[in-house]
Amino acid sequence: MTVTTTEHRVTTELSGRPLAAEIRRRTGERAAVLGAAGARPRLVVVTATDDGSTLWYVRSIAKAAAAVGIACDIADLGPEASRTRVRDRLRALNQDPGVHGIILQTPLPDGMSPAELAVEIDPAKDVDGANPASLGRCAAGLPGFAPATAEAVVRLLDHHGVDLAGRDITMVGRSVVVGTPVALLLLERHATVTVCHSRTADLAGHTRAADIVIVAAGVPRLVGADHVGAGAVVIDVGTNATDDGLVGDVDAGAVDGVAGALTPVPGGVGPVTTALLLAHTVQAADRAAG
Amino acid sequence: MTVTTTEHRVTTELSGRPLAAEIRRRTGERAAVLGAAGARPRLVVVTATDDGSTLWYVRSIAKAAAAVGIACDIADLGPEASRTRVRDRLRALNQDPGVHGIILQTPLPDGMSPAELAVEIDPAKDVDGANPASLGRCAAGLPGFAPATAEAVVRLLDHHGVDLAGRDITMVGRSVVVGTPVALLLLERHATVTVCHSRTADLAGHTRAADIVIVAAGVPRLVGADHVGAGAVVIDVGTNATDDGLVGDVDAGAVDGVAGALTPVPGGVGPVTTALLLAHTVQAADRAAG
Repeated sequence: MTVTTTEHRVTTELSGRPLAAEIRRRTGERAAVLGAAGARPRLVVVTATDDGSTLWYVRSIAKAAAAVGIACDIADLGPEASRTRVRDRLRALNQDPGVHGIILQTPLPDGMSPAELAVEIDPAKDVDGANPASLGRCAAGLPGFAPATAEAVVRLLDHHGVDLAGRDITMVGRSVVVGTPVALLLLERHATVTVCHSRTADLAGHTRAADIVIVAAGVPRLVGADHVGAGAVVIDVGTNATDDGLVGDVDAGAVDGVAGALTPVPGGVGPVTTALLLAHTVQAADRAAG
Repeated sequence: MTVTTTEHRVTTELSGRPLAAEIRRRTGERAAVLGAAGARPRLVVVTATDDGSTLWYVRSIAKAAAAVGIACDIADLGPEASRTRVRDRLRALNQDPGVHGIILQTPLPDGMSPAELAVEIDPAKDVDGANPASLGRCAAGLPGFAPATAEAVVRLLDHHGVDLAGRDITMVGRSVVVGTPVALLLLERHATVTVCHSRTADLAGHTRAADIVIVAAGVPRLVGADHVGAGAVVIDVGTNATDDGLVGDVDAGAVDGVAGALTPVPGGVGPVTTALLLAHTVQAADRAAG
């Protein structure tokens, strides 16, 4: 399907599910080959929290991994874990040849900086691109794992045939896990990229002027009809738990009929992100198997 | 001096020389203290080229270093140096406790990627922020050396009292040594940043809309009167050798009276960049001295 950004009346849904299924299928095929050769890919998710929704999310990764033939361990260090304990576990996992992918799950205990600890993750096993070195490699065009969510945004745009080169793209959000790496990946793809955030003076002006708007602000329904140019492609990375259930950073009802295309929440970027974590783990296992 | 971006008739010159002198003065004071303690800071510039203007530039760094009490060696590997030879020299310099700062000077021999080799430079000695890991640390807000040119742009804006938070800034150029790190540093300072480049559809539209325009495109006089909003602050990072002598990426004559302020070429970003390379070397020596 090709998405155009000309005048329109219907907003196309940019589902992530078919792409996620395709990535999982290929990942499963490769995992089976590695498994048959006695090198079953293994992912370890390190947690240090008792936050229920986080632990639910981590278990969903483990289930998705199992479904494609990847072993997945949850290394639960508990909400009282010290910085040293987290660091030592990451170092041990780096050294373990049976472990191919490492995810350091946020949130971490108060006062612990994810980036400061993620520098410990071996870039070869850093399947969620959390080590700042992975981000730098990404910016420098060197091989390395991008944060899965950021890569999912680009893959989803490609899957739906949205051209990027020379297009004006506004990224709402500047986090080190989404907004910043998405901007870096899009620059590499020759887009003109504007990064907005909570201190931006005229957010609606910047988003309205864009061919493509990507929102990762963590603010439920931040982007409404006034923020979107007619026919623009809108990617909603937000997943906010509210009294109305899970809602995105985009007010889907408001932009319906204005945007040319919009990702659903859930079912848009999320499933692609999870599938890419698994794909990265198999790639890491493949490289380790040499 | 405070630069405002209201209507005006005169374009203020944003010289880099006073700031560079101030950085060199402080750097020299600290280098003297370290030298007196038997820990004279030492910078090594690795070259693998016979390009005359590059070698001239490297000698100018060495002279500037000597003037503030920093030892500076030029490790000239010659234009025929192999990748292995460059890599091994960088590794040896990492191991040498008497060396505090390492610069891998471009251009390198054909087919050698600066970023691929710069991953070898110990981030603690990477005084020009060439290792992608340094860039990633910069993006993640962790301590590390930013590329000196990128930091010089931000320091120059600060020196001249230009507010950054909430301002619309257009960066022309997306290189890994200037455009990309400048964008990352400005996002950290709460600016709204647009990155344009050779594939941008409407460059003049993006630059005209900005409060601050930074140009690092390597194209002589790319930015003219049509590209600049009335009263905008313009930072010219370009230094192009032409038949008319050294010219910037901004047509200074054309934007005079339109821009609110403009850096001269030479004498703008350049001297601050050199001063920061020296300052970083002394910081690295300071940390090594514990």
